Amino acid sequence: MEKWRLLAPGPTPVPEEVLSVMSLPVIHHRAPKFKEILTKVAEDLKYVFQTKNDVVIFSASGTGAMEAAVANCFCKGDKVLVVRAGKFGERWGELVSVYGLNPIFVDVEWGKAVEVAQVKNELDKNSDLKGIFIQSSETSTGVKHPIKDIAALVKKNDNCLMIVDGITGVGVFSVETDNWGIDIHVSGSQKAFMLPPGLAFASVSEKALKFMEKSDLPKYYFDLKKERKNLLKGQNAYTPAVSLVVGLSKVLDMLKEEGLENIWKRHSLLSYATREAVKAIGLKLYAPDSPSESVTAVYAPEGIDGQDIVKIFRTNFKITIAGGQDRAKGKIFRLSHIGFFDKFDIITSIAALEMALKKLGYKFELGKGVSKALEILSE
Amino acid sequence: MEKWRLLAPGPTPVPEEVLSVMSLPVIHHRAPKFKEILTKVAEDLKYVFQTKNDVVIFSASGTGAMEAAVANCFCKGDKVLVVRAGKFGERWGELVSVYGLNPIFVDVEWGKAVEVAQVKNELDKNSDLKGIFIQSSETSTGVKHPIKDIAALVKKNDNCLMIVDGITGVGVFSVETDNWGIDIHVSGSQKAFMLPPGLAFASVSEKALKFMEKSDLPKYYFDLKKERKNLLKGQNAYTPAVSLVVGLSKVLDMLKEEGLENIWKRHSLLSYATREAVKAIGLKLYAPDSPSESVTAVYAPEGIDGQDIVKIFRTNFKITIAGGQDRAKGKIFRLSHIGFFDKFDIITSIAALEMALKKLGYKFELGKGVSKALEILSE
Repeated sequence: MEKWRLLAPGPTPVPEEVLSVMSLPVIHHRAPKFKEILTKVAEDLKYVFQTKNDVVIFSASGTGAMEAAVANCFCKGDKVLVVRAGKFGERWGELVSVYGLNPIFVDVEWGKAVEVAQVKNELDKNSDLKGIFIQSSETSTGVKHPIKDIAALVKKNDNCLMIVDGITGVGVFSVETDNWGIDIHVSGSQKAFMLPPGLAFASVSEKALKFMEKSDLPKYYFDLKKERKNLLKGQNAYTPAVSLVVGLSKVLDMLKEEGLENIWKRHSLLSYATREAVKAIGLKLYAPDSPSESVTAVYAPEGIDGQDIVKIFRTNFKITIAGGQDRAKGKIFRLSHIGFFDKFDIITSIAALEMALKKLGYKFELGKGVSKALEILSE
Repeated sequence: MEKWRLLAPGPTPVPEEVLSVMSLPVIHHRAPKFKEILTKVAEDLKYVFQTKNDVVIFSASGTGAMEAAVANCFCKGDKVLVVRAGKFGERWGELVSVYGLNPIFVDVEWGKAVEVAQVKNELDKNSDLKGIFIQSSETSTGVKHPIKDIAALVKKNDNCLMIVDGITGVGVFSVETDNWGIDIHVSGSQKAFMLPPGLAFASVSEKALKFMEKSDLPKYYFDLKKERKNLLKGQNAYTPAVSLVVGLSKVLDMLKEEGLENIWKRHSLLSYATREAVKAIGLKLYAPDSPSESVTAVYAPEGIDGQDIVKIFRTNFKITIAGGQDRAKGKIFRLSHIGFFDKFDIITSIAALEMALKKLGYKFELGKGVSKALEILSE
């Protein structure tokens, strides 16, 4: 008997009751029943995104919604600011470059959050900035950026959009799309939405709609205006991933039942317990100053390759965690607590970590980490 | 007890054994197990596409792969030929226009196939044509285009690509990607691949790869070169719709077991039976001259709205069929036989049609259609 566990920052575990509705016979995407589901889903997404505006749904991974933000709101040559503090910040950079925008980069050391002053400084120097691109949670480093304060810099500026990749932020901690002034807020199904990958979301503000009227960049499949118009009629322009939408409907019921406040508290507690537990066995956090509640990045102990830890998790314990990406590869490993996670998943995660480290010859007092987690989680 | 039946040209019915593997716990997209599945799927797709070249997989609906063909192979201002014989031919037209290509349109009356001479004529007049865009099966009209003969016109022309939307063609009738010289051949999961919507496929020829080196159009999520390179490593650039890929693996096993020749024969027989049955009750085919084996478009009898037939199917019989789209709306209805269909699905479809027509006051001898289908299918 092999029991596999998915403790990575996406795809994340899918509740069995969600898997089971997704395996029901497929509904036709123009049938009244599907319209009903999509209309309900569109309403419920607003709750999770903390917005009164429409949240457009694409059948794609989250990157598709990131591309939509770029291709729909800007014109060739537009000057934009991109915060690059990890692999996903770099993705914004690649996207705006592909579409011929004119990016100014704010590069941040991996493991650190951007400082509001760094962004303000560039805004002061460049009054013609048309947009700011950032992550609320930079999954590759486990960092949370100060979105509220950065958004405040451009909230009253009609000529600059605030574009946030909330792929591992939405449904994890509070990011107030409307109140803070986020114009395009992006997320994906395989994170806090507890679904398999395949759906991407993008909220669209009134300000963003105005930018979309002027945009001269090519878009077709990721046409936000067209998909928004279709959504209001309870449909998608192209055949959507029907079974994922049906699963999403179920997931949103579950999220509403738990309530956003409780969801945030749960993620906050689980991430806190994870951080304290790894510190208790003498490990160093990769992002100690501004950690995201979705994923905890941890330095591998000296002399041990982070990838070996990941490999032992998989081979010996049938648990999938994430290693470091690009320049952090080998240096770190990442334990996740986003989506369908409870206290016992954290205990499992720390227990497996201790067993892996013991196997790799790391010297520490076995049980210290688990005990610390237990102490925090039993309160 | 409500028993719903999906007899539309996409989404199509999904076999229960496929639904069940898709509801298994989600596998991480960078796990060795998923690499293994993706590598197998990539091989098996070649069999169904009749190609030795790579078939790239996108998490998107088929339109995404159509967009990939446009954005990856061409340059701004390239002169291309677009065959428009229905809604999906128009989609090629919209796509090439969005990306700033310079299209020459061959417009064909809906319900008719394009004539090879029409295309040849334009090729003779425009020696600088860089691509031909067409459907193998135009789903909106139920027409099959003469792909082999059109492809032959440019097979030896190194400066012009043959781009075929085979969304309702691949796995239905034989379209020999390599032998006929199709450079990009597109399909989607929710048709003959018997899956829910959410995956798109595009085969890529050596000739297309050369065009891709020169292309100056923006692409990111639908980057064919990048995804092809990733596929060879057993992965996708962005998180793929894992559960659909797992379902695809199962589906491809089933398709290989039945064998392409048998699959084509089955579709041919079922479509023939459908056409003869509707003729037997006095109805007129919308595309009598070059019908596609994936869907049969039928004129509604005089005085009866095609949409009313669709509505009665849904309301009274819990069966989803398709109406006409755009200019054909109300004039026609479409009965499908693509993917997971057998003889009894055709009998069901014709029986429901007879009951619906009776209800709508159409005068005919009840049972004539079903008898005709039975006669053909029992042979």
